[in-house]
Amino acid sequence: VGGGYVEQAQQHAKSRQALVRILLEQRKWPTDGWDDATIELFLKEISLMDSNNFMGNVGVGEREARVASRLVAQRHFGLGHGVGRSGDIAAIQPKAAGSSLLAQLTKRMLLDVVKLAGLQRMKACLLLPVATGMGMVMTLLTLRTLRPGAKYVVWPRIDQKSCLKAIFTAGFEPLIIENVLEGDELRTDLEAVAKIIEEKKAENIVCIMSTTSCFAPRAQDRVEELAQICKAHEIPHVINNAYGLQASKCTHSINEAMRIGRVDVVVHSTDKNLLVPVGGSILASHDPNLLDTISKTYPGRASGSPAIDVFITLLSLGSSGYAKLLAQRKHVYKYMKQKLQEFAAANGERVLETKHNQISIALSLDSFACKRKDMSFLGSMLFARNVSGTRVVTGVTTKEINGASFASYGAHYNEYPSVYLTAAAAIGMTSEDVDNFIERLQKVFVQFRKRLTQGLPEGEESRPKPETLLDEEEES
Amino acid sequence: VGGGYVEQAQQHAKSRQALVRILLEQRKWPTDGWDDATIELFLKEISLMDSNNFMGNVGVGEREARVASRLVAQRHFGLGHGVGRSGDIAAIQPKAAGSSLLAQLTKRMLLDVVKLAGLQRMKACLLLPVATGMGMVMTLLTLRTLRPGAKYVVWPRIDQKSCLKAIFTAGFEPLIIENVLEGDELRTDLEAVAKIIEEKKAENIVCIMSTTSCFAPRAQDRVEELAQICKAHEIPHVINNAYGLQASKCTHSINEAMRIGRVDVVVHSTDKNLLVPVGGSILASHDPNLLDTISKTYPGRASGSPAIDVFITLLSLGSSGYAKLLAQRKHVYKYMKQKLQEFAAANGERVLETKHNQISIALSLDSFACKRKDMSFLGSMLFARNVSGTRVVTGVTTKEINGASFASYGAHYNEYPSVYLTAAAAIGMTSEDVDNFIERLQKVFVQFRKRLTQGLPEGEESRPKPETLLDEEEES
Amino acid sequence: VGGGYVEQAQQHAKSRQALVRILLEQRKWPTDGWDDATIELFLKEISLMDSNNFMGNVGVGEREARVASRLVAQRHFGLGHGVGRSGDIAAIQPKAAGSSLLAQLTKRMLLDVVKLAGLQRMKACLLLPVATGMGMVMTLLTLRTLRPGAKYVVWPRIDQKSCLKAIFTAGFEPLIIENVLEGDELRTDLEAVAKIIEEKKAENIVCIMSTTSCFAPRAQDRVEELAQICKAHEIPHVINNAYGLQASKCTHSINEAMRIGRVDVVVHSTDKNLLVPVGGSILASHDPNLLDTISKTYPGRASGSPAIDVFITLLSLGSSGYAKLLAQRKHVYKYMKQKLQEFAAANGERVLETKHNQISIALSLDSFACKRKDMSFLGSMLFARNVSGTRVVTGVTTKEINGASFASYGAHYNEYPSVYLTAAAAIGMTSEDVDNFIERLQKVFVQFRKRLTQGLPEGEESRPKPETLLDEEEES
Amino acid sequence: VGGGYVEQAQQHAKSRQALVRILLEQRKWPTDGWDDATIELFLKEISLMDSNNFMGNVGVGEREARVASRLVAQRHFGLGHGVGRSGDIAAIQPKAAGSSLLAQLTKRMLLDVVKLAGLQRMKACLLLPVATGMGMVMTLLTLRTLRPGAKYVVWPRIDQKSCLKAIFTAGFEPLIIENVLEGDELRTDLEAVAKIIEEKKAENIVCIMSTTSCFAPRAQDRVEELAQICKAHEIPHVINNAYGLQASKCTHSINEAMRIGRVDVVVHSTDKNLLVPVGGSILASHDPNLLDTISKTYPGRASGSPAIDVFITLLSLGSSGYAKLLAQRKHVYKYMKQKLQEFAAANGERVLETKHNQISIALSLDSFACKRKDMSFLGSMLFARNVSGTRVVTGVTTKEINGASFASYGAHYNEYPSVYLTAAAAIGMTSEDVDNFIERLQKVFVQFRKRLTQGLPEGEESRPKPETLLDEEEES
Repeated sequence: VGGGYVEQAQQHAKSRQALVRILLEQRKWPTDGWDDATIELFLKEISLMDSNNFMGNVGVGEREARVASRLVAQRHFGLGHGVGRSGDIAAIQPKAAGSSLLAQLTKRMLLDVVKLAGLQRMKACLLLPVATGMGMVMTLLTLRTLRPGAKYVVWPRIDQKSCLKAIFTAGFEPLIIENVLEGDELRTDLEAVAKIIEEKKAENIVCIMSTTSCFAPRAQDRVEELAQICKAHEIPHVINNAYGLQASKCTHSINEAMRIGRVDVVVHSTDKNLLVPVGGSILASHDPNLLDTISKTYPGRASGSPAIDVFITLLSLGSSGYAKLLAQRKHVYKYMKQKLQEFAAANGERVLETKHNQISIALSLDSFACKRKDMSFLGSMLFARNVSGTRVVTGVTTKEINGASFASYGAHYNEYPSVYLTAAAAIGMTSEDVDNFIERLQKVFVQFRKRLTQGLPEGEESRPKPETLLDEEEES
Repeated sequence: VGGGYVEQAQQHAKSRQALVRILLEQRKWPTDGWDDATIELFLKEISLMDSNNFMGNVGVGEREARVASRLVAQRHFGLGHGVGRSGDIAAIQPKAAGSSLLAQLTKRMLLDVVKLAGLQRMKACLLLPVATGMGMVMTLLTLRTLRPGAKYVVWPRIDQKSCLKAIFTAGFEPLIIENVLEGDELRTDLEAVAKIIEEKKAENIVCIMSTTSCFAPRAQDRVEELAQICKAHEIPHVINNAYGLQASKCTHSINEAMRIGRVDVVVHSTDKNLLVPVGGSILASHDPNLLDTISKTYPGRASGSPAIDVFITLLSLGSSGYAKLLAQRKHVYKYMKQKLQEFAAANGERVLETKHNQISIALSLDSFACKRKDMSFLGSMLFARNVSGTRVVTGVTTKEINGASFASYGAHYNEYPSVYLTAAAAIGMTSEDVDNFIERLQKVFVQFRKRLTQGLPEGEESRPKPETLLDEEEES
Repeated sequence: VGGGYVEQAQQHAKSRQALVRILLEQRKWPTDGWDDATIELFLKEISLMDSNNFMGNVGVGEREARVASRLVAQRHFGLGHGVGRSGDIAAIQPKAAGSSLLAQLTKRMLLDVVKLAGLQRMKACLLLPVATGMGMVMTLLTLRTLRPGAKYVVWPRIDQKSCLKAIFTAGFEPLIIENVLEGDELRTDLEAVAKIIEEKKAENIVCIMSTTSCFAPRAQDRVEELAQICKAHEIPHVINNAYGLQASKCTHSINEAMRIGRVDVVVHSTDKNLLVPVGGSILASHDPNLLDTISKTYPGRASGSPAIDVFITLLSLGSSGYAKLLAQRKHVYKYMKQKLQEFAAANGERVLETKHNQISIALSLDSFACKRKDMSFLGSMLFARNVSGTRVVTGVTTKEINGASFASYGAHYNEYPSVYLTAAAAIGMTSEDVDNFIERLQKVFVQFRKRLTQGLPEGEESRPKPETLLDEEEES
Repeated sequence: VGGGYVEQAQQHAKSRQALVRILLEQRKWPTDGWDDATIELFLKEISLMDSNNFMGNVGVGEREARVASRLVAQRHFGLGHGVGRSGDIAAIQPKAAGSSLLAQLTKRMLLDVVKLAGLQRMKACLLLPVATGMGMVMTLLTLRTLRPGAKYVVWPRIDQKSCLKAIFTAGFEPLIIENVLEGDELRTDLEAVAKIIEEKKAENIVCIMSTTSCFAPRAQDRVEELAQICKAHEIPHVINNAYGLQASKCTHSINEAMRIGRVDVVVHSTDKNLLVPVGGSILASHDPNLLDTISKTYPGRASGSPAIDVFITLLSLGSSGYAKLLAQRKHVYKYMKQKLQEFAAANGERVLETKHNQISIALSLDSFACKRKDMSFLGSMLFARNVSGTRVVTGVTTKEINGASFASYGAHYNEYPSVYLTAAAAIGMTSEDVDNFIERLQKVFVQFRKRLTQGLPEGEESRPKPETLLDEEEES
């Protein structure tokens, strides 16, 4: 094959290699996304840097990344050693230079991600190959070593099991701060926080664990004020920003909290913010040393899978692609709110006013002539019609979790005046999704009213009725 | 397309569907491995049971398993919801019937796996999507809730960082039991164990954490006797059998320990025993309730990736394929021992006698005229020649881990008489690997002796010298 | 895994199975495209119907679809037997029920494709696993058996090598009909056709081979009138509609030609019309028997790859997806024409008026002060700037092909008044592509003028100069 | 990621790059096979050299390798332009430097393949993307242009449809030479060949088309003597060595024929010799110019799929891997012959003596008390028990193909004394396959005898009975 064609082809090959070289040298998140071919090429090159993929390698250890199934090897691009080393989840592995490189690059790009999302004051990120709940556990276990003797976690109530369980699993006791109702919104009771600190003494408190992303009508916690309290009392402040990286409202509040007060670690879910399968969490901090301590608290190696997913996704989107997704989400939120308001007006309901929650929207369900608890069936009807992710909160369930009892579980509040349905405008959603949702919601409203007046329409009995699906909030 | 051909083809299609049906009904590990095509077909069917893959699905929640990158979606076979639910890592996910089914089937097959491997007395397994070290942390955190107030872990010394760190990370204090030298072997000091229990009181002890799989010349712990002690004092017994599932010596001892004494949980690595990428651990117990408690201690969801890998691998091998791998490993161990003995005889060294360790073999390195610490370079020379997994233990390193100090770190013992090199006959290894290893070892012996007498040969300087690689045992 | 979730999941699984069942029963092109997961699932099921994929199969023949490389097996989804049988490319293979089924379904869907595209009068299609040129050869070789003794092909000049070579390869002699210039357009000389038939005698003529899709300023042939001539003289009529399936202008003319005259076979390229890799041709006819004769003329088996590609693509698009692509192409054609007209006005050129060509557009290049032959460099400049597919036709090349000599080769005409550049609005193109094309064309115009007045700008010499690329039309 | 590990990893990366560089520079078939990872990496690099994969490419032609379906693009590794150019199937494509490179490298390696297989005198190869039958047609069509006026093909009878059809499809008339019976073997009647040449005149004969690989008891043709006749009369000699590349008996005879006589082109199947899916043929010749002429006779582009398959397979095996497969086949042939002889002795049959056929073996079926034609059911019984590829030849079928009539079709001979069953020891087969075959054959013998004496056993009626499957030899 001769002549200018090959030269031109080689020139193009070089421009791809340049992408790789720039990434390796600058360790910055590329602005423009890479195409899949370039990503796969790079993954292959990385994979071939791991010793198990060396030609002629002889492994005589107990852990040699041998993989029995071709299907399995293939889905990991030949990477088998996972991430981390016995003493440090972020350590370089001698046998796995490629895997280690991938992990390092991912970590560096994640710092660009959180900054792009608005967390300008962050100095470092740590990708833990466990989801948000366990990411919180690792944070708490690390704080224990730094505050031996402390045993309480101040925790403004949020009706998600994971974070509460994280407190118990880490061996601490939660000090539950009930929310206060302001208009339709549930907000942090700062006075109660101050009071309990005084009561239990700051030195006995491991941290305040606040929450930003949550289901309406709960608002994000007043993290600025909490950060000031933490600063004043020298109490660590951990923020559960599970899916709040996608919402500038959340990130800007946290950034401001860091400016005027104390924030130690902010925990995020990878799947909810970066559109990857469940499996990782991003810890961000202004203090690289603290993240190092956490990574050294993690014993042994871990799955490299979450890092691979994040790595591919970040390269595929580029920062411009992610910025576009963020902008689209903001637009979809507004669109969904407007459509739900129109729907509410036409159906004798209303959209609850929750301006401190820019992801989740709650629609009242007060116009139906039935018992509160029976309203949950409406959620099941939606699920049976392929609408997933809504929740009907009836406020009648009481739940006990590790000894703590919660009235109106799911409502974040003991006596919320309305029954309501929540829906979220999350990243990756489209306005077409909103249209389909509203259309099916309308049908379900009609059918449910009919059902209430006439009994169940024919044929309905035989449909799957996963009624218990939607009693409580789900989280990871 | 007509006639008998299609009928015959359909008959074959049915016999594959029958495989699936039998698995679903009996939930037993198939004896014969499935071919990749059948596995992929089944994975696709499973994937299409998750709501994010329903046609016409509209997700309006905050976690909808949307996946941005096609490459990522593909490597997870479209499964995005991970495993578990907020309160329980083993719980069924309403939105993800397929992922949940895969997790359940994997769990059931793993019980067959541990039984096949010799752990006949087990009643249940739990696959945790974290590696061995964190699997140990989760076990310890659960035991804390069952033994509030207890703060010590009795721990016969094993120079692997992960398990020691697991104790610290879980917030406990290790009571380190130094090993005793019997012939060449390092064995558990049962008297010291008894003594320390008496001293610290049984009720203050969370558990005894013993270790089976380890590097020679350390032997597996005397788990039968430890189990009897635990039974007598009502102390939980957790066994770190990280890569011992592959060695009937380990599993038979544990099984016997369960018969005559107390064993609560045995922790295994998935990658080291099942030839999958790093990322999971198998907890086995005779007590399903205890495993349920551990799974409920895990807060939130987790990566489904380890379960997918194990699921594929188990179906691909079938129990007969795995039995064959176990038999092959046993054969390779004998072969490697014999070859190393021949090598030792020819090179003025000897193979240390460690009959209570049937995986790892230690070769003395006492014939070289150099300082102990300089011998570590021999390990680096092997690594540079594509032999991974050996360790040269010089016994001169002192290491401090979370405040505990270890002389001769890596040797499991303060003054081991020899310098030695270890190699392991692990599952998946072939006798061809052994031959290549011995051949390169011979070359390295010659070159290293030459180096000691004549200085470094020309060109050698420019080779990569990862001298620090092999100071310590690696684990996950 | 229990309860309603699995039922719902199974219901979804059933609706996918229903798609497959409907396709198998009705053998109609689905209106809505299938998602990749469903397609892959179906391909796997098909693959497992071939005997080489039967579990326990023992092959003792000389052709057993054994595949050495996993990579190769995988890319063919395990299908190895190709299509056809020794005597008939469309025959069912006993050993390969799955491959045969795939071929049959593809054939049936293709009839829906050509009808959707406007060829309403077609009764059957044949997918040949060879590209257009060889598809033409197979047609001509079949016509020879039906018209023994005939040796001429009447062929209105079209400067593409493939069709002319096809005539020679099939062993015939072309009777070349020069085009006539009408305005800017080159059109079929019907009088010359009539005259040559009279001269050579109808019985000595194998067929008239006309062409529809071509580069402007050549128009599509006057197929209606040619069809009437063929009917009157009982001469077969073969139409090379290579990429004309995408343009309703071409298909409607052919359909009309079939109504009022004679059309025997119309040959299409799969890659150019269906967006698959090069490799197949679609023969369409109102006469299923004639296509059967052609398929029986094909000796032996052939690659199944083109059928697999078409099969996947048709299922993926669905007829509605393809209809959308056709509509988009029509829109892009208009958009490109308008943009080129604006460009022409601003740059002292004009778009040639060629209303009988609705795919290709020609832009005059008469404003440059250089020799005709030097204008070809402008095409190379475009190629070097990643614009592929344009052609600069200078009209100065004379070419000899198998003894026939063509002045102004590439122009379809001996003395076309203008030098011009062609571009095509082909299926799959977007208006964004048009914008990029115009933008780069503008830059090249400026640079080329500068080059003509000042000599080559610095640095330009070192760029790849594939000057010879664009002398002639390319085709497959 | 720092230090020596990365250096070592890079060194390994370089050694892979070196493999690629050596291949590009030397264009020799590598001795050692490449692993899949290296092959995939190289394919990706090649793919990115095609203009459709350039970043920022704008296609404004009618053929731009746009691919609608991701599944399709992926299976072609992003290669969409196929191979060849309008005038020459072996030409370089300006838009597709990568595809062209792949085609060139494949062509060069194929020359190494045929030489390794024993065809030492070959100077060039051509990979046609059509199977053997069409490869023969292309050869004959090219010979027509070189011998205008000639119309006969001398053809020693071989009962495979493809080659006979190829003669008719190319527009020639076969001069059929009946075989002679020597012992059990059917051999070429050289006197009849000489006689017919005299009768029809050498100048009217396009070529002698001889056959080497065939079903026993037909022997390979006496190609040495035929080559001498061709040389003496200046008649081209084309050899159909469809699956004979795998048998040194065939290749050595051809090589000898080339030494002492005339051989113009030898045609091989890719699937049967190289273990790829059906779709390509290898033409080998001592005369590169003749192959060039054939490649220029092929009009237009063609599928790149066969070249991709061959390319991957050759790199994956390496020449040493292929040599091993050839040696294994020879061993399996001997093993099968021995096992069949033992079987025959035990069952009152005999293996026909056919020493000039070293691939196919025939077992007499003369011990059954039934009509000749009823014996074909025995073949169907084997197929229904998953033995594919055997043929029962009863010698009672008369077949007409394009006007030529053949008595005892399938037997290559009008009155072969025995009914028999053939089986082939083809490349890729294992001795385990032979054992399974013999075992099932034994069962079928018992069942068939029972059936003949007692009538059909219960349940047998309902099994698929593809009785007509095995009447004739299959080929591609």
